[in-house]
Amino acid sequence: MKKCSFVEVGPRDGLQNHSRVLTLAERESFVRRLVADGVLEVEVGSFVRDDRIPQLAQTAKLVSKLQKFKTSKGRQPFFWAFVPNVRGMELALETAIDGVGLFVAASETFCNKNVNRTQAELLLEIKNILPMAKAAKRKVRVYLSTITFCPYEGAVRPAKVKKLVRNLIDMGVDEVSLGDTTGHATPLDISKLLAEVLKVAPAGKITMHLHDTRGLAMANVWESMRHGLNRFDSSLGGLGGCPYAPGAAGNLATEDLLFALNSMGAMKSTVDLNKLTKTSLWLEKQIGAKLPSKVLATFRKQS
Amino acid sequence: MKKCSFVEVGPRDGLQNHSRVLTLAERESFVRRLVADGVLEVEVGSFVRDDRIPQLAQTAKLVSKLQKFKTSKGRQPFFWAFVPNVRGMELALETAIDGVGLFVAASETFCNKNVNRTQAELLLEIKNILPMAKAAKRKVRVYLSTITFCPYEGAVRPAKVKKLVRNLIDMGVDEVSLGDTTGHATPLDISKLLAEVLKVAPAGKITMHLHDTRGLAMANVWESMRHGLNRFDSSLGGLGGCPYAPGAAGNLATEDLLFALNSMGAMKSTVDLNKLTKTSLWLEKQIGAKLPSKVLATFRKQS
Repeated sequence: MKKCSFVEVGPRDGLQNHSRVLTLAERESFVRRLVADGVLEVEVGSFVRDDRIPQLAQTAKLVSKLQKFKTSKGRQPFFWAFVPNVRGMELALETAIDGVGLFVAASETFCNKNVNRTQAELLLEIKNILPMAKAAKRKVRVYLSTITFCPYEGAVRPAKVKKLVRNLIDMGVDEVSLGDTTGHATPLDISKLLAEVLKVAPAGKITMHLHDTRGLAMANVWESMRHGLNRFDSSLGGLGGCPYAPGAAGNLATEDLLFALNSMGAMKSTVDLNKLTKTSLWLEKQIGAKLPSKVLATFRKQS
Repeated sequence: MKKCSFVEVGPRDGLQNHSRVLTLAERESFVRRLVADGVLEVEVGSFVRDDRIPQLAQTAKLVSKLQKFKTSKGRQPFFWAFVPNVRGMELALETAIDGVGLFVAASETFCNKNVNRTQAELLLEIKNILPMAKAAKRKVRVYLSTITFCPYEGAVRPAKVKKLVRNLIDMGVDEVSLGDTTGHATPLDISKLLAEVLKVAPAGKITMHLHDTRGLAMANVWESMRHGLNRFDSSLGGLGGCPYAPGAAGNLATEDLLFALNSMGAMKSTVDLNKLTKTSLWLEKQIGAKLPSKVLATFRKQS
């Protein structure tokens, strides 16, 4: 079985979709703790206007503090940030961020409702950002949302996703993160989708970004692994969701992903799960809410 | 893909592990509603001494009322009840119950801690009950617990489970329900286990009884289906768990199972999920607590 890696998206995707706004110091502590627990890749924020997403304001300032962060074993982590457009990319390039995440959705309506732009406009933005990233030696991942289901359009055909993935790979993105935005996908959907997508992209360039809205995230992780994928996005405690998608909630929890992959001997980095759950309990205090991770619940009972 | 069936164990396994004791009238309503929603098999109670498990007291009286229950399409459901020993079986045979569920665990320590008997004693009890059931034309299912992990002994070897399954099949039980009691099993564990078990038993005689304690229940359902299994135990809303297993909680929720199997076109009976969630919300009122089903949460948001 291939060893897997993951990107912790809690400090960006998670916090963005939570109502409580953390201070910059709290966000810095969040990332510092994750890294100390052994997390090797973290999406730390977003280069958007501070008034647009107050949860992620002053990301440049946050990034300036990250260089010193090392894992307990002295390893240097990789930091991602979300970038919505060329202007955001310019801001990102003023920092030492290692890589940027861009957005497009398979569903035209979702593009429109989510960021008020057409799919073509979003693809053009990605095309314009790519040479900027390459010139500055930054990695580019693209979040491709609504891969099997759109809350406005319903079922999304695998052929549509395949075409977009081919397009993105041809453009030269380093990685496409396939997002089951609403958490509707069954393992059968994932199987059909990956059978198509892997015709046009190597497994190493595809990451799965799954939501546990209907309890299917880990089933979809497993099905993805069966197709040769070994990279997943997850969020500490299951923080976040997607406010634009009615009824959607719950990123795949990092604890749930780690418990399963560690148990199967399929995790590359050995994050200390015990230690990580202490960060989860700390985070619960900061956001003033319980996190939905099931594995975290078993630790909570023990402590 | 094989069409699947399920046994709703909420009114027995679920209620037994919940602190709030429902009245007999409430339990009758619970079963009546499930059947009206289209559920075809329900485990309704237990033939134990009333003072031992007050949650399931007077099961004989409950069974006497079930004959009239029909699904909305006029189908006659199948009712199961749990039986701990020969004395319980005698009580069961005084009623019109269709089938009985018996217990044994793969872990010797778990047998001892759970019911204060040795595994050999439990197997002998099953052997003695079987001819009583056959003579009275009642079906027999055996709950074989701790199939991959025991809270006291740790990992359980597949060879141990295989031997027990062979033994039970040879005795003539109609069905073995393999229980991941603590919710520790990964799909890799299930894969290894079923590779062994299916050497000695036809897939049609194996049911999976999965817990979602660590978010892996549906991944394990999917892996079981890949091995040709098509029968699962589930509990409305995820009611119950296992009080004898530290840190264990959460039967696989019927709503979560149904959403996934319906979406994949892999469910035999077409229970109306929308209608079923109204029964879940009713049940939450009776027990005075929220049920953990993820799919139920999405319905709760909508209503």
